[in-house]
Amino acid sequence: MSEKDHQFSLEFIVRDYECDFQGVVNNANYQHYLEHARHEFLILKGISAVNLHEEGIDLIVSRIEIDYKYPLRSRDRFEVRISIKREGNARLVFLQNIYRLPDEKLIIKAIVTGVATKKGRPVAPGILIEQLGLQ
Amino acid sequence: MSEKDHQFSLEFIVRDYECDFQGVVNNANYQHYLEHARHEFLILKGISAVNLHEEGIDLIVSRIEIDYKYPLRSRDRFEVRISIKREGNARLVFLQNIYRLPDEKLIIKAIVTGVATKKGRPVAPGILIEQLGLQ
Amino acid sequence: MSEKDHQFSLEFIVRDYECDFQGVVNNANYQHYLEHARHEFLILKGISAVNLHEEGIDLIVSRIEIDYKYPLRSRDRFEVRISIKREGNARLVFLQNIYRLPDEKLIIKAIVTGVATKKGRPVAPGILIEQLGLQ
Amino acid sequence: MSEKDHQFSLEFIVRDYECDFQGVVNNANYQHYLEHARHEFLILKGISAVNLHEEGIDLIVSRIEIDYKYPLRSRDRFEVRISIKREGNARLVFLQNIYRLPDEKLIIKAIVTGVATKKGRPVAPGILIEQLGLQ
Repeated sequence: MSEKDHQFSLEFIVRDYECDFQGVVNNANYQHYLEHARHEFLILKGISAVNLHEEGIDLIVSRIEIDYKYPLRSRDRFEVRISIKREGNARLVFLQNIYRLPDEKLIIKAIVTGVATKKGRPVAPGILIEQLGLQ
Repeated sequence: MSEKDHQFSLEFIVRDYECDFQGVVNNANYQHYLEHARHEFLILKGISAVNLHEEGIDLIVSRIEIDYKYPLRSRDRFEVRISIKREGNARLVFLQNIYRLPDEKLIIKAIVTGVATKKGRPVAPGILIEQLGLQ
Repeated sequence: MSEKDHQFSLEFIVRDYECDFQGVVNNANYQHYLEHARHEFLILKGISAVNLHEEGIDLIVSRIEIDYKYPLRSRDRFEVRISIKREGNARLVFLQNIYRLPDEKLIIKAIVTGVATKKGRPVAPGILIEQLGLQ
Repeated sequence: MSEKDHQFSLEFIVRDYECDFQGVVNNANYQHYLEHARHEFLILKGISAVNLHEEGIDLIVSRIEIDYKYPLRSRDRFEVRISIKREGNARLVFLQNIYRLPDEKLIIKAIVTGVATKKGRPVAPGILIEQLGLQ
């Protein structure tokens, strides 16, 4: 994902409770940031993970790859930037990078593969693909 | 990692607060399970992530890949199994699978690459490699 | 709650990710320990918070008081001990203390008031009171 | 704390991962919101919990009381409002209420007592009291 490519970005500030005994954000918390940014991006496209769950459809992550480049510390401001692409008929791939602000230092690069499931089985995310402009 | 290969395993039970609105363990929490199992494995080998931090050395994760195969639910018992290998002079690779108990269903497959750093720079994890029997 | 009074206890070990930048367990995580111990106690009595939720009944906490006496650190073993009493027709009060092991140092004293609700309104927890032996 | 009394407020939005299997914010996460708001308030007054830790002084919570009035759900906007008072020579008391926005529904009322400690022993928070305008 190059600087200009992202379709959505969301700004955060590191909260102290997100830092662990090493004084930096605990690895697992980056997944929280990535999830929150994805869900806010989907909301903007008219897709609510919570509402879909109530209708019996779950958006789930089937695979995640994260390269940790540099750690975030207490009160660092940062931005999660997202671009999305389709993979076959069933998968959506979110490219998600985190940059520290204001110096734009690359913090993590993540590739998150998502599928829509109904009762635990993948469903073609037709309407999602349409709403995301990926058809 | 085949069944017989793992060098360490640790049993857990899913706690209700680890489940999210979808009624399954939130993706980020698997990283917590993986980290806790790794740290307990290292303790068994005489390596304390917390003590090393106090000596100025941080064990950090530089890359993680997780394939989410099947979700865990409230009170599921499960086991994190670990095998470890060396990658060059600076990296340790932890193969970590999670299996539900007692049915041995595969839940996640993870590959976690770790490095030892001092003041943010990688250091050759010589003594760690020795303690882990990887020399 | 005196030593001999508790009706249930559950042992834990502090996981490194539960410690924050101060090197001790973050305050919020004690609530996680308390909740997990309560839910395990209720399970033993035949009451599942998760199953009740699926039937439309939610066990919720209406008030919590915690006195933090001494902090827990990485890998400390500890026990959550619970005794329970009834308060009027609608409330259950859980007295929950945490002791470090093996030295029995008092870590926190908590009083947790719970109510059962249906569609957001309190319901008399008749059957719960029976199952808990409080009638 | 009446509406007009608070000295600081901070706005948040509920993130989906903060909700548990009941579909509402898990009780422990309110403590995270309260802590983050307190730390941001202190920063505004020139007091950094993280920097103090590095100087050997820890701001810790000795007691918390929370009345849970109404639950927050996915993507609810809310505000943590804080007023502060001194209690004797060693304690600071934070009155912290959470209101949902924009309807101002009261979500929780919390009273958080804090002390400053050095090597685990309370110290008179003289300079803090001055910086907080409480002398």
